Amino acid sequence: MTPHLTPQADPAKGAAVKAADRAHVFHSWSAQELIDPLAVAGAEGAYFWDYEGNRYLDFTSGLVYTNIGYQHPKVVAAVQEQAGKMTTFAPAFAIDVRSEAARLIAERTPGDLDKIFFTNGGAEAVENAARMARIHTGRPKIMSAYRSYHGATAAAINLTGDPRRWASDNGSAGVVRFWAPFLYRSPFYAETEAEECARALQHLEDTVAFENPNSIAAIILETVPGTAGIMTPPPGYLAGVREICDRYGIVLVLDEVMAGFGRTGAWFAADHYDVVPDLLTFAKGVNSGYVPLGGVAISSAIAETFAKKPYPGGLTYSGHPLACAAAVATLETMAEERIVEHAAHIGEHVLGPGLRELAERHPSVGEVRGLGVFWALDLVRNQETREPLVPYNATGAANAPMAEFAAACKRSGLWPFVNMNRTHAVPACTVSEAEAKEGLAILDEALSVTDKHVVG
Amino acid sequence: MTPHLTPQADPAKGAAVKAADRAHVFHSWSAQELIDPLAVAGAEGAYFWDYEGNRYLDFTSGLVYTNIGYQHPKVVAAVQEQAGKMTTFAPAFAIDVRSEAARLIAERTPGDLDKIFFTNGGAEAVENAARMARIHTGRPKIMSAYRSYHGATAAAINLTGDPRRWASDNGSAGVVRFWAPFLYRSPFYAETEAEECARALQHLEDTVAFENPNSIAAIILETVPGTAGIMTPPPGYLAGVREICDRYGIVLVLDEVMAGFGRTGAWFAADHYDVVPDLLTFAKGVNSGYVPLGGVAISSAIAETFAKKPYPGGLTYSGHPLACAAAVATLETMAEERIVEHAAHIGEHVLGPGLRELAERHPSVGEVRGLGVFWALDLVRNQETREPLVPYNATGAANAPMAEFAAACKRSGLWPFVNMNRTHAVPACTVSEAEAKEGLAILDEALSVTDKHVVG
Repeated sequence: MTPHLTPQADPAKGAAVKAADRAHVFHSWSAQELIDPLAVAGAEGAYFWDYEGNRYLDFTSGLVYTNIGYQHPKVVAAVQEQAGKMTTFAPAFAIDVRSEAARLIAERTPGDLDKIFFTNGGAEAVENAARMARIHTGRPKIMSAYRSYHGATAAAINLTGDPRRWASDNGSAGVVRFWAPFLYRSPFYAETEAEECARALQHLEDTVAFENPNSIAAIILETVPGTAGIMTPPPGYLAGVREICDRYGIVLVLDEVMAGFGRTGAWFAADHYDVVPDLLTFAKGVNSGYVPLGGVAISSAIAETFAKKPYPGGLTYSGHPLACAAAVATLETMAEERIVEHAAHIGEHVLGPGLRELAERHPSVGEVRGLGVFWALDLVRNQETREPLVPYNATGAANAPMAEFAAACKRSGLWPFVNMNRTHAVPACTVSEAEAKEGLAILDEALSVTDKHVVG
Repeated sequence: MTPHLTPQADPAKGAAVKAADRAHVFHSWSAQELIDPLAVAGAEGAYFWDYEGNRYLDFTSGLVYTNIGYQHPKVVAAVQEQAGKMTTFAPAFAIDVRSEAARLIAERTPGDLDKIFFTNGGAEAVENAARMARIHTGRPKIMSAYRSYHGATAAAINLTGDPRRWASDNGSAGVVRFWAPFLYRSPFYAETEAEECARALQHLEDTVAFENPNSIAAIILETVPGTAGIMTPPPGYLAGVREICDRYGIVLVLDEVMAGFGRTGAWFAADHYDVVPDLLTFAKGVNSGYVPLGGVAISSAIAETFAKKPYPGGLTYSGHPLACAAAVATLETMAEERIVEHAAHIGEHVLGPGLRELAERHPSVGEVRGLGVFWALDLVRNQETREPLVPYNATGAANAPMAEFAAACKRSGLWPFVNMNRTHAVPACTVSEAEAKEGLAILDEALSVTDKHVVG
């Protein structure tokens, strides 16, 4: 452990931070009086620490966004330098770092996605992609997958499949949901990847046909669905979706808010599948969230729609200079330090083999899925029946096995990502081999807790 | 002019910035090939400058958000210091600057608005206020005013009155629009403020009654509508709306994204009217946009709704540490340097009297409205008929008089805020008396251009 990673305990300050939080901070996705937020004192690289002197290996990358790790010195320096020059400026002007961030992103996005509309985060990126697709096609409906997350503003949450949508869903005008491929829990009763792919494409094609192809503006998919379970699509699926979109004049939107910028061991997950969408949404990894930033990369055909006709959307902080400076430094540093290649290496040689090895020894692990630093363990009560370790959207006692698992990880110094019956291993792209192995060892221990819930 | 405000000309760099912008940046609210964004090299206080060596007095505060001026050294230093400590951390944790920003905001918001839900900007604040109101009341509809702007995500744009909504409005499920008071162009044929107030309240009451009061979750109003024209509400109007809300169990949302944090010469515009909303949305001035930040201040009754039941909304960058550090420094500096009081002084003693004096001499000025550093000149073709200088939502040749006015301002070194037939005088809250007078002198000159379009 390097000296700067030694946490300094200061429980009194921690208590004060916590008290002010409890008095005044209203937290996302929470019953405000039932949560007990950990007061965090500092973070660096793949670790963070609290005021009691406990250090945690962060296997969540925050909310799967600090791809470059915490406090990367080059990005911190770039933010500080830009703050001294120009923290902010309105979106209607040309600003050096805004131009440069757009250029660097466009250079990395696949195909002709060369115009960048900047937002503050992923939800607004999806909101604007939906608007662009509807106006470009003149059609009302957007299709999205049940196992998905696209953000929490009105349009984005209604495009979301997971239960976080329910409280805001009053019937979803303009949204049609379908099932994407997921061989381990196949909606199509398939037994091979090829069969799952063919059936998922047929299901999509049938749904498009029965909805009226001329009413569909866009199909939106996370290239690799993230919080919904890191289901890497079977070979051919995304190409098949692209072909359906082309045949019916439908805009293909790939949501790479979580999967983009190194997470899968490529600049974009789409690079693995040789598919070019018409719109690509991003956020998180673009600057590791050092300053809020998201956006939409736009194809030349869609940009052309708004060449002479005004685009009816915008926001005060679009192309925020401080956020763009963080993006420029992040993208340059990721290239210089070969961080994307490193993430691929960690996936192929450490996390992938290590997690598969755990699966062999732990009866509660049903499936290991993923690539790069983007992995899911699908936990089950029984490997034969594949019954999830806890039911869909379980809370309280029904969710106890997962809560016990999370507590065991934390006791051993690992902060785990937990969603429904899954834990995701999603550390920073910069995670070292030793750190990844440290995480695997703690997961190994904690899985003995879930193993106890295996039946039959 | 202080030496650091001397622009350094560098036309070659300006051309490169512009070229990369044109190649890769997709701009808000614009026909991409019909715009010609000015490349801006730097900004400080109330000024910014381009790469040609031209300096502009910014009478727009960006998009009415840099209340503390550009590059305030204390806020810049706070951002730099926080970047060195902890740029970012996920929202589920207690973080010192997050707690402190929430505490300082809660201390300033009126009444019992003591819980702060942080977002990245104003649109997301409105999205979440709408969600909170609907869940708190169990009712579907939200009422908003025709002359309003609330943001550009799906829920926020549908609550917006102005034409920026049109392209995204497919029938506005769950939104009911009404007319707010505006004596100069009275929707109610009133002749006095008292009459306008009484009739506007009767209109609102009637609309609530005919919609079914038990179907209305919330009424949302900008306390002083901003881009729609800075119509300060007549005495008694907001108290009357509050009373209607109380009578029917409707949530009152005051949108202070533009009007809050000093703009009106008070911490919040609501302070002028002694009205406490149930939810207050903010962004912009909270940290002058140095880092993207917005939020909702929540009453204890609404917070209670989400005490034991999860709040179904959230975002990755909620309570972003860098943004919160900028807010803490902004709020402390505004208090230490008495910036809110200064804005009030500038309004009462410089901008208000100065603009009224212009109105006396220029036949194209129909009305002067505002307070603090938040003023509108309503420009007309004829003071008797009050016919707007250009039609509602005019473009091209029909908008020529306003375009000529804006060009005249820019030629003389003032960057004007122009919307429809209005120009708004909305400099930083820190604008000096001399700078405000410099602005008034340039407006004086430029109004000779609009005077030429006066008829009859």
